[in-house]
Amino acid sequence: MSLKLTILGCHSATPRVNANPTAQFLEIKNHNFLIDCGEGTQVQLRKYGIKFSKINHIFISHLHGDHFYGLVGLISTFRLLNRENELHVYGPKGIKEIITLQLKLSSSWTQYPLYFHELSSDKSELIFEDAKVEVHTIPLDHRVYTNGFLFKEKIGERKLDMNAISNYKEIEICDYQNLKNGRDFKLNNGTIIKNKELTKDPSNPKSYAFCSDTSYFPEIVPIIKNVNCLYHEATFLKNKEALANTTKHSTAAQAASIAKLADVDQLIIGHYSGRYKNKEDFQVEAQEIFENTQLAIEGKVFEIL
Amino acid sequence: MSLKLTILGCHSATPRVNANPTAQFLEIKNHNFLIDCGEGTQVQLRKYGIKFSKINHIFISHLHGDHFYGLVGLISTFRLLNRENELHVYGPKGIKEIITLQLKLSSSWTQYPLYFHELSSDKSELIFEDAKVEVHTIPLDHRVYTNGFLFKEKIGERKLDMNAISNYKEIEICDYQNLKNGRDFKLNNGTIIKNKELTKDPSNPKSYAFCSDTSYFPEIVPIIKNVNCLYHEATFLKNKEALANTTKHSTAAQAASIAKLADVDQLIIGHYSGRYKNKEDFQVEAQEIFENTQLAIEGKVFEIL
Repeated sequence: MSLKLTILGCHSATPRVNANPTAQFLEIKNHNFLIDCGEGTQVQLRKYGIKFSKINHIFISHLHGDHFYGLVGLISTFRLLNRENELHVYGPKGIKEIITLQLKLSSSWTQYPLYFHELSSDKSELIFEDAKVEVHTIPLDHRVYTNGFLFKEKIGERKLDMNAISNYKEIEICDYQNLKNGRDFKLNNGTIIKNKELTKDPSNPKSYAFCSDTSYFPEIVPIIKNVNCLYHEATFLKNKEALANTTKHSTAAQAASIAKLADVDQLIIGHYSGRYKNKEDFQVEAQEIFENTQLAIEGKVFEIL
Repeated sequence: MSLKLTILGCHSATPRVNANPTAQFLEIKNHNFLIDCGEGTQVQLRKYGIKFSKINHIFISHLHGDHFYGLVGLISTFRLLNRENELHVYGPKGIKEIITLQLKLSSSWTQYPLYFHELSSDKSELIFEDAKVEVHTIPLDHRVYTNGFLFKEKIGERKLDMNAISNYKEIEICDYQNLKNGRDFKLNNGTIIKNKELTKDPSNPKSYAFCSDTSYFPEIVPIIKNVNCLYHEATFLKNKEALANTTKHSTAAQAASIAKLADVDQLIIGHYSGRYKNKEDFQVEAQEIFENTQLAIEGKVFEIL
């Protein structure tokens, strides 16, 4: 199964009509992850028909308003919707104090378990793991402490080769899981059938790297090397590279250079400055360096194959 | 000149597509006041073409999310728009800590002067006053510390009666301000012309009372007596009066009863619970008790005459 990424907001700085700040919804191996949560994200979730109750993990890149001012509202709405499931929030140190202070002063503690996983390392860390998925931080270079996030499927089970299996009547359904797990099969006569004769390689695990906000920062390349899909902010065009440097943002050309260096399959760019009316200019600039570049558009769904 | 009230949001609890939480914009005697600031208010301000830079005073009734989660974003946006004017925020004790913590952790201090006026009294207080306008708190009865706000024009200058004045050639333009201020005029021959013969009464000062959120609370009636316009929350219909009591909200009938007791000219109701699809039911219920009841609708402008 592919990963599915829904863009909820892809603009920088201030929320405007039909120009929402950063938020993305990622479906990966039965997980539903929310990535960043600018003001208005809960309305965007409703607009695009995403069930609130599905979200159990929220990843916040940094504490600038256009990436997290919608978080406290979403947490409060979960309370009003009588949520019972645990909610896990991953974000920079300080995020717990910000949220809990507001819940305390409004006498609105959540009735569901709310866990904060505060981040402060400047090295890539494994911050979430289960049997099928890993999430690592991608330390970025911005004006405040900022992480991107690398979402990786683990290598799955081997696939049964039913044609090959049908040659051996001794192999029963109850043996299938052992085969998926890579075990050889021993016939009653003692002959060993190698697992590779009975199964095929698992699907290639998919990966998605979310990088926003950051200056041009090639140090991330080893972490995001060969991902299937990279989202990299592109706040400016290269005619504003000096401003990008000052504000520790990237140009479309710089985002594309990172994609090329990391040899990714696909690049998505967003976090556009409000000064640009024509978003296609970002795509044109990036494609000169990295052909497979797509524009983030609110409501657009990317299938990561 | 009349007061002008623009409804930016009039729904309760969670923001939804085309159902924004509480925020109102009040124009009164060259002041531009923002009243409450739920999530998404800055987008609503843009949607209805209100210039951000005009707002110098923001009044927050209480610290439930649907009344102030948009404040930190608006304060941040003022910074990004290079605001220079002072901004004054009036709200419950704790509001300063909430906002400043977020500005500190995002390294985004405002470059403009930002003043917090924290409220904690359970008695009505005069919290803003200049030559033309007064603002008083209206202590309400809600689950957390909550104030409504009473906005009152002061009695203006007397109006020149140009017909009467033209009978006295000795009265010159430089005397007009004294007449407007209520002074009599002394002719050269020593005769005193009474001010009332030369001027007319000033226009009646207008007043607007904003009351949200609150249970049915007749203690406010002396404070809001005879206002030209009362906004009173009506979260429920009377078939949910028990729930209104539990959650310390009001029904449309209760809002209308307060309007009747206070003998106001006009009632506006809003803060509708999301469970009701047909807002007209609120108006029908209220009008049985208080005929001149209007529904708050997002984007609607009320001229308070």
